[in-house]
Amino acid sequence: MLAQDSGRSIKAVMAVHNETSTGVTSRIGDIRKAIDRTRHPALFMVDTISSLASIDYRHDEWGVDVTVAGSQKGLMLPPGLSFNAISDKALAAHKTARLPRSYWDWSAMLAANQTGFFPYTPATNLLYGLNEAIEMLLEEGLDNVFARHDRHAEATRRAVRGWGLEILCLNPAEYSSALTAVMMPPGGNADALRKIVLDKFDMSLGAGLSKLAGKVFRIGHLGSFNDLMLMGTLAGVEMGLSLVGAPHHKGGAQAAIDYLAEAAGRPDITVGPKRSAA
Amino acid sequence: MLAQDSGRSIKAVMAVHNETSTGVTSRIGDIRKAIDRTRHPALFMVDTISSLASIDYRHDEWGVDVTVAGSQKGLMLPPGLSFNAISDKALAAHKTARLPRSYWDWSAMLAANQTGFFPYTPATNLLYGLNEAIEMLLEEGLDNVFARHDRHAEATRRAVRGWGLEILCLNPAEYSSALTAVMMPPGGNADALRKIVLDKFDMSLGAGLSKLAGKVFRIGHLGSFNDLMLMGTLAGVEMGLSLVGAPHHKGGAQAAIDYLAEAAGRPDITVGPKRSAA
Amino acid sequence: MLAQDSGRSIKAVMAVHNETSTGVTSRIGDIRKAIDRTRHPALFMVDTISSLASIDYRHDEWGVDVTVAGSQKGLMLPPGLSFNAISDKALAAHKTARLPRSYWDWSAMLAANQTGFFPYTPATNLLYGLNEAIEMLLEEGLDNVFARHDRHAEATRRAVRGWGLEILCLNPAEYSSALTAVMMPPGGNADALRKIVLDKFDMSLGAGLSKLAGKVFRIGHLGSFNDLMLMGTLAGVEMGLSLVGAPHHKGGAQAAIDYLAEAAGRPDITVGPKRSAA
Amino acid sequence: MLAQDSGRSIKAVMAVHNETSTGVTSRIGDIRKAIDRTRHPALFMVDTISSLASIDYRHDEWGVDVTVAGSQKGLMLPPGLSFNAISDKALAAHKTARLPRSYWDWSAMLAANQTGFFPYTPATNLLYGLNEAIEMLLEEGLDNVFARHDRHAEATRRAVRGWGLEILCLNPAEYSSALTAVMMPPGGNADALRKIVLDKFDMSLGAGLSKLAGKVFRIGHLGSFNDLMLMGTLAGVEMGLSLVGAPHHKGGAQAAIDYLAEAAGRPDITVGPKRSAA
Repeated sequence: MLAQDSGRSIKAVMAVHNETSTGVTSRIGDIRKAIDRTRHPALFMVDTISSLASIDYRHDEWGVDVTVAGSQKGLMLPPGLSFNAISDKALAAHKTARLPRSYWDWSAMLAANQTGFFPYTPATNLLYGLNEAIEMLLEEGLDNVFARHDRHAEATRRAVRGWGLEILCLNPAEYSSALTAVMMPPGGNADALRKIVLDKFDMSLGAGLSKLAGKVFRIGHLGSFNDLMLMGTLAGVEMGLSLVGAPHHKGGAQAAIDYLAEAAGRPDITVGPKRSAA
Repeated sequence: MLAQDSGRSIKAVMAVHNETSTGVTSRIGDIRKAIDRTRHPALFMVDTISSLASIDYRHDEWGVDVTVAGSQKGLMLPPGLSFNAISDKALAAHKTARLPRSYWDWSAMLAANQTGFFPYTPATNLLYGLNEAIEMLLEEGLDNVFARHDRHAEATRRAVRGWGLEILCLNPAEYSSALTAVMMPPGGNADALRKIVLDKFDMSLGAGLSKLAGKVFRIGHLGSFNDLMLMGTLAGVEMGLSLVGAPHHKGGAQAAIDYLAEAAGRPDITVGPKRSAA
Repeated sequence: MLAQDSGRSIKAVMAVHNETSTGVTSRIGDIRKAIDRTRHPALFMVDTISSLASIDYRHDEWGVDVTVAGSQKGLMLPPGLSFNAISDKALAAHKTARLPRSYWDWSAMLAANQTGFFPYTPATNLLYGLNEAIEMLLEEGLDNVFARHDRHAEATRRAVRGWGLEILCLNPAEYSSALTAVMMPPGGNADALRKIVLDKFDMSLGAGLSKLAGKVFRIGHLGSFNDLMLMGTLAGVEMGLSLVGAPHHKGGAQAAIDYLAEAAGRPDITVGPKRSAA
Repeated sequence: MLAQDSGRSIKAVMAVHNETSTGVTSRIGDIRKAIDRTRHPALFMVDTISSLASIDYRHDEWGVDVTVAGSQKGLMLPPGLSFNAISDKALAAHKTARLPRSYWDWSAMLAANQTGFFPYTPATNLLYGLNEAIEMLLEEGLDNVFARHDRHAEATRRAVRGWGLEILCLNPAEYSSALTAVMMPPGGNADALRKIVLDKFDMSLGAGLSKLAGKVFRIGHLGSFNDLMLMGTLAGVEMGLSLVGAPHHKGGAQAAIDYLAEAAGRPDITVGPKRSAA
C-alpha cells in the first residue's frame, strides 16, 4: 500500500508491538525495513503498552518514530501513567501538523520536562512507584527480565500442548512472551471456563475479543511474575478445563513443571521480583 | 503421671494444639478427658499459635483452662499481638499464685479490658488489622475456613504420596491442616532442598528442627491461602526435588490438581480471602 | 460579546468556578443568567478542578452544560482522575461536532459506563480512594464541608488583614473558600517568602502566576483540612514574613485563633476528616 | 538510702529519664554520680521510653546498667518493639539472678542476636520501619534532632507563660524537651479542656494521672514533629482554653510564633522529618 501511495496520502504506519488480544508479537524491526524498502516517508508509530519492560523493544535501533507505553503492565504499576518516545522526524512532523490539539501537544510537555516538570498535574504518586519499578528492573537486568518472560511463555505453551489445545498464534517467530491466547476446544465456551476459574479460584483470565469472543481465553505472564505464580496460574486453567468438562488431556501443568525445573538448573536464570526483598 | 501424683505437685498439663515443627495436631478434647479420668486438679494449658483460625479449636467446649494464641498465622496479620483465653479455674489459680509477675499479670489486663483499654501500650496498628481479619474470617464462615485448610492439607498429602515420599505424622487422626512435614528421601538433605527452592523460586519452606534437622521439610498451608497458592507451592517443591536430584516420582503436583479440581466441583467450598475483593 | 454575535460564531462560554491562581470564585449561576439574557445558544462550560467538594457547586441547578473536575483537590485524592458532567444540550452538540477526537469522545465512555466499565484502562487504584473519599464527604455532610471551608477562608482573611496585607480578590462576593491569594507588601518578593517558608518550615505556598509572579503568594485551605492545620499554615506565613523582613503587623495568626475559637463554640460546626477515625 | 543499706538489700536504683506524666527529665548522669558516691553496688536501670531519640541520652557514658526503650515515641514508629541496652555488670547479675524467667531471659536473645535472629517471632514489619526511622534520624543528625525538640519545648513554655499558666515542672534544669505538663488554672478542669479540644479540633492532649488527674494537661512535642505542627497544637490549646472559659491571657501562641521565627533565622536549625521528602 505504501508503494502504491504515490500521492503520499498515508501519514503513518501504526503497529502494536504485543497484541494483547491475540498473543502475537509483531516484528517491529522487520516492519521498519519493509517501510524503508518502499522509500515512503510515512511515520512509524508503535504501541508497546503490553510489551514494554517484559519483551525486548528498541525505539532508536529499530527506527520507530513514536512509541506509546503505559505503567500498568511490564512496569508493574497501577494504571495511570502513559509515555511517549518520539524521533526527530516525528517531532518535525508535530511542528507542522495542523490537527487541532491541546492536551496531546508535545511542545508544552517538552518545554516543562526540561526542568523536570509537567505542563499539567501528573499522577504524582505513580511517579514514586515508577522510580522503584525501574530500579527493580535494572537490578534484575533487562536481559534477564526478558529471558524470564520468554521462559514463562515457553512453559505456558508446553502446558497448552500438554492439554492438547491450540495456541492462537500460529507463527512461532511471533509468539508473545507477555501472554498466550489459547483456543477453547470445539464445543467448549471460553467464557464459561473464565467464569468458573474466577468463581472457584479467584483468578481472572483474559477474554477473547470481537470475533474470538467465547472461543479464546488468555493467560497473562508479564510484569511482576515468577515460576510459582505461573504454576498456580496453569494449575488453575487445568482445573478449570476439568470443571467445565472441556475435552483435554491432563498433564499440561506437569509439562510446565518439567520444563521450568530443567530451566531452573541453569546458572543464569533469575527469579523475578522477590517476595523476600526488603 | 497425673494418676501417680498423689501429692498434687503437678500444677498444669501443657499441650500444643498444632505442633508446627512436626505437622501433628493434638486431640485436645481427648487429652482433657484423659486428665479428667485421673481426677487430678492440674490446669490444662494449650498453645494454639499455629492453629487458631485455621483448624477448629474450642476453648470452652473442650474444657481448656488457658489458651495462648498469636496474630501471625491463622489470623493473617504480621506478628506482634498475642492472646490468652482463661477459664474461671485458671483465674482462681492466678489469684493465689505466688510466682513473681508484673507484665504477665492478668489482673491489670482484665481491669483495663473492661473499658476497652490496655494496661500498657498495645501494638495499636495491628488492632486495626485484627478487626479486618476477623471480619474476613466471619465473612467466609469459620467452618468454611477450616474445610478449606483440610482440603489443602489433603491435597498436599496426595502430592507427597505422589512423589513417593513419607509424611512425618503417622496417625491420620492427627494430620495437621495447617502444615505438612515431609521426610526427605534417604540420602537427601532437606536443607539443601530448602536452599535451592529459596534461591530459584523465592519460596521459603520450613526446616526440620533438632533431631529432624536436615531430614524433614515443612509445607505451610495455613492462614490466607487458596488452591492456586497451594499449587504454586507444590510445584515449587516438585521442581526443587528434581533440582537436588532427590529420588522421587513425578506426578505429586498432578495428584493435587486432580484432587482440588474434583473438590472444586462441590457447591459448598469457598475460595479463601479474595484477591479481587475491594 | 454574545449579544453582538449575531452570526453565532461563539460556540461556548468557558468559566473557572474557582480561579486557583487568584483566589476568586466566579458566580456561575449569575453568569448563566447573563448568557440567557442574550438568548445566545452558546454552551456553558465550567472548570471546577479546585472547587468541587470544597465549595458549593450545582451543575444542574445552575444550568451548566459541561463541568470538568479532578480528583486531587476537594476529593482529597492523589491526581490521576478527571470527571465530566454534561447536559443534554452538550451531548447533542457532541453528536454533531466535527472536531476530530478519539480519547476525548464521550460516546465510548457513556456506552461503557452503562455497565460500570470504561472504554480504556482507568486509574483503578484511585477509584477505591474515590469511593472512600465520597463516603467521608457524605459522612461529614456536604453543607458542613462547605461551611468548614468558608470558616477557614474567613479565618485566613482575618489573618491577612491582621498582618496589614491585602487580599488579591477585591470583591467579597467572590472570595474563594478554597484558597486565598495575598499581595506581598510593596518592596517584598513573594517568591523569596515562599522559598524561606519551604526551607525553614517544609510548607509549600502557591506562587503568583504570569503578571502576578513574585507579587502574590497563595494560601490553600481546601480538601482534607481542619482548624489546627490552618493555624500551622498561618503561623508559618507569619513567621516567613518576619524572616524575610516584609513590612507587616504581628497578630494575624492571633486574629485567626480568636475567630476560630469563637466559631468552634457554635454547636453546628464540624471538625473535618478526623485523624482519630478508624 | 543506699548509704544506709549496709546489708546491700537494695538490688537496683530505677529511674525514668523522661517522666511522661509530669514532663520532668531526670539528670541521669548526676544520679549515677550520687549512686557512686555511696559506693553501693546496686544496678542502675533507666526507662527511656519517651525520651530516646528525642532527648540526648548516653547509656555508656552515663554508666547506666539497664536501659529500656520503645518504638512508639522518638523512634516515630507504631508501638510494638521494645529495646534493652545492658552493661557487663547487668549481664553478670543476670547470670546469677534466681528470679524465675523465660521470655525476659537475656541469654536466649543474646545468643540469637549473634546471627541477626530472635529467639521468638519478633514484630517483623516494625523492623523495616525501624530501619527507615534510624536512617531519618541520622540524616537529620542526632544533635539537630535534640536541638529541634529543645526549641519546641522552649516555644511551648513561652506559650504557657503567655497564657499566664504554670508549668508543672519547677526546675528549669529538668524541663522535658519531649512534653510539657501544664497546670490548669484554679477552678478549671483539665479533662473538660481535653475533651473539648478532642471534640472540636481532633487533637488528643495527655491527661494528668493519679493525684494530678483533672489538674494537669500535657502537650507532647516529641518524635516526628516540626514548627508548624507545634503551632497547630498550641493554637488548639489556646482555643480550647477559650472554649472552656478558663482564666488565661491571649497571646501564648503568639509568643511561640515570635520565638520560633527568631530561632528559624539561625543557619543551624533543622526542620524535622520532611513532608516533601521522597
